[in-house]
Amino acid sequence: MDQPDLAAVTHQHVAFDDGMALDCGMALGRLVVAYRTYGTLNASRSNAVLVCHALTGDQYVAETHPVTGKGGWWDMVVGPGLPVDTDRYFVICANVLGGCMGSTGPRSPRDGAAPGVLWGTDFPPVTIRDMVRAQKRLIDHLGIARLFAVIGGSMGGMQVLEWAASYPESVFAAVPVATAAYHSAQNIAFNEVGRQSLFADPDWRGGRYWESGSVPARGLAVARMVAHITYLSEQALTRKFGRRVRGGAAAGDLALFGDMFEVESYLRHQGSTFVRRFDANSYLTITRATDYFDLAAEHDGNLSAAFAGTRTRFCIISFSSDWLYPTAESRAVARALNRAAANVSFVEIASDKGHDAFLLDEPDFHRTLAGFLAGCAEHAGLPE
Amino acid sequence: MDQPDLAAVTHQHVAFDDGMALDCGMALGRLVVAYRTYGTLNASRSNAVLVCHALTGDQYVAETHPVTGKGGWWDMVVGPGLPVDTDRYFVICANVLGGCMGSTGPRSPRDGAAPGVLWGTDFPPVTIRDMVRAQKRLIDHLGIARLFAVIGGSMGGMQVLEWAASYPESVFAAVPVATAAYHSAQNIAFNEVGRQSLFADPDWRGGRYWESGSVPARGLAVARMVAHITYLSEQALTRKFGRRVRGGAAAGDLALFGDMFEVESYLRHQGSTFVRRFDANSYLTITRATDYFDLAAEHDGNLSAAFAGTRTRFCIISFSSDWLYPTAESRAVARALNRAAANVSFVEIASDKGHDAFLLDEPDFHRTLAGFLAGCAEHAGLPE
Repeated sequence: MDQPDLAAVTHQHVAFDDGMALDCGMALGRLVVAYRTYGTLNASRSNAVLVCHALTGDQYVAETHPVTGKGGWWDMVVGPGLPVDTDRYFVICANVLGGCMGSTGPRSPRDGAAPGVLWGTDFPPVTIRDMVRAQKRLIDHLGIARLFAVIGGSMGGMQVLEWAASYPESVFAAVPVATAAYHSAQNIAFNEVGRQSLFADPDWRGGRYWESGSVPARGLAVARMVAHITYLSEQALTRKFGRRVRGGAAAGDLALFGDMFEVESYLRHQGSTFVRRFDANSYLTITRATDYFDLAAEHDGNLSAAFAGTRTRFCIISFSSDWLYPTAESRAVARALNRAAANVSFVEIASDKGHDAFLLDEPDFHRTLAGFLAGCAEHAGLPE
Repeated sequence: MDQPDLAAVTHQHVAFDDGMALDCGMALGRLVVAYRTYGTLNASRSNAVLVCHALTGDQYVAETHPVTGKGGWWDMVVGPGLPVDTDRYFVICANVLGGCMGSTGPRSPRDGAAPGVLWGTDFPPVTIRDMVRAQKRLIDHLGIARLFAVIGGSMGGMQVLEWAASYPESVFAAVPVATAAYHSAQNIAFNEVGRQSLFADPDWRGGRYWESGSVPARGLAVARMVAHITYLSEQALTRKFGRRVRGGAAAGDLALFGDMFEVESYLRHQGSTFVRRFDANSYLTITRATDYFDLAAEHDGNLSAAFAGTRTRFCIISFSSDWLYPTAESRAVARALNRAAANVSFVEIASDKGHDAFLLDEPDFHRTLAGFLAGCAEHAGLPE
């Protein structure tokens, strides 16, 4: 398996040797937060924007990725003159706790163990709230008392909601995109298929694959394939692939296991490229964190209570063809915010691109984001 | 793996020693069609109803299953006094070509090979039209010139459409339920995930698992899990499971790999029980047949042409929350039939149970089916 040694790549980071307590009751003895920044922090430290990444994203938002060599995952959104304008804002993005791009996670040295022993599957379960706590440590370290904005899509949006709920005084504006305040049974079910697929791979070796230098590539690829289907709408799949077959194969060629339909070839490619850049134990840890997420449950079942008295300005954005986190779930968040008398806008972007729309060229989305931030900057008295 | 020896179970069947030609250009030297019947064929042989089963169904429609010991898969629909009334109709159901309940398939002896050698992955690829051809042989064998009705849901509905297109004079009434005239890119994508999951299982052994008495149980279970999610609506999953956790585990127990959410436990159960009754090579053969299905493509891209001049009476039934074969795809079939000036009713049943609704207690569906058949019986001059 041609996965580069992910642990050998160095990432900009900060280490907290006093560690961090976790929701599960355990504590990490040492906490590392890997991050990237773009733009310049102004003198009053008032122009910081935290971008929160999704399940398989990372801190390389707007630059070449050190492992894949590809462009940043949000380089259409973050950069000079773009909706999150790095000529104006100081943009920060941290690899989530549990991730595999430098922040503490299953590939990190295990607390109190001999050198070379990693956490692996013994890494403690983490929650979205734990991820946000780790980010708060970074923000404190950077000397930023209040973030001008916290922005993120999908699992990044869960972090945005958790930031607003946990640190309301530290968030001037919040933009949760294509997300929900809890994971539904269907969301959990799809994640569980991915996990079982990983466990079924003999190279999984009970989660200790790293000891033998192996990678549960086939199981992780299947997990990615099923997840990827949920990121796209049926319309997008039909438009991109329809029933087209690949290469010389004609519709009459009934080759049972050949690369027949283009959509199959595409999914296999998605699976195999993912395996090269992601750690299987991180995939388990992070999917589990999304399954646990239920912001109302953290507030006695009352989602409005999570936002009681908030002064944060919210812009909630959903996409009409997103069936993973449907508009109805964004609307439920907007209603809860309305009940809490919060300042909230809610925009459903018409798009047939499915959940992935937040990562794609969607001018209406980009205009909405730019406009909301500009309005907030005016209210915040941020210099142009 | 505690899979019973599926080949050791005997099934009522008919063997055609002249074999059958297949769409792929190959031919089977011997064709076995396993089937069950319910009710009595009348003297004029005019009361026969063919029920076509779905992907993982079989001929045991309305009686105890010989492998699982469970009731028939449609015993709410087929039986005395039920919508498909066995006091009035003679009901036939055949295991599909490529299946594993007695009809010729990957577990059958390979043509021209030594005794004990099975087809396995070398079984020729089959199409829905091949399945219907095999059923036609059975119907001819039973001396039935015209079926009063052909009924089926999901892949069974594809067979219904193919029957009406291939043998219009042999089908008085056709009821395709929760189906489509072709497999969409999304349908193919989900099937492909299941196949890749099977291939990733070391017990798959290149499809020759039967030689060593092993079963690719984990891969097949994951395939079943992902398919099962597509059979249910998000609402049904939420109603049945929501975010409830199992046993003594509380929401605060963040056990990473425990049986935490009920929906996970349910899916694992679905996966493991399926493995006990189904053959992996059959799963590949049959999912591939559904992917190939494109009735319009068989008629130069014109779905109406498939039904030109038809005198069959159609009742097309869809379910509002079915996202695997959405109502829009049934509507497209109804439109094509309208363009062919066919006699067609189209009913969308309001249900939140998803694709599986056709197998469940849905009184509106059952009433629609019973009413349509009663009306057709009158037109056909069938004695009460």
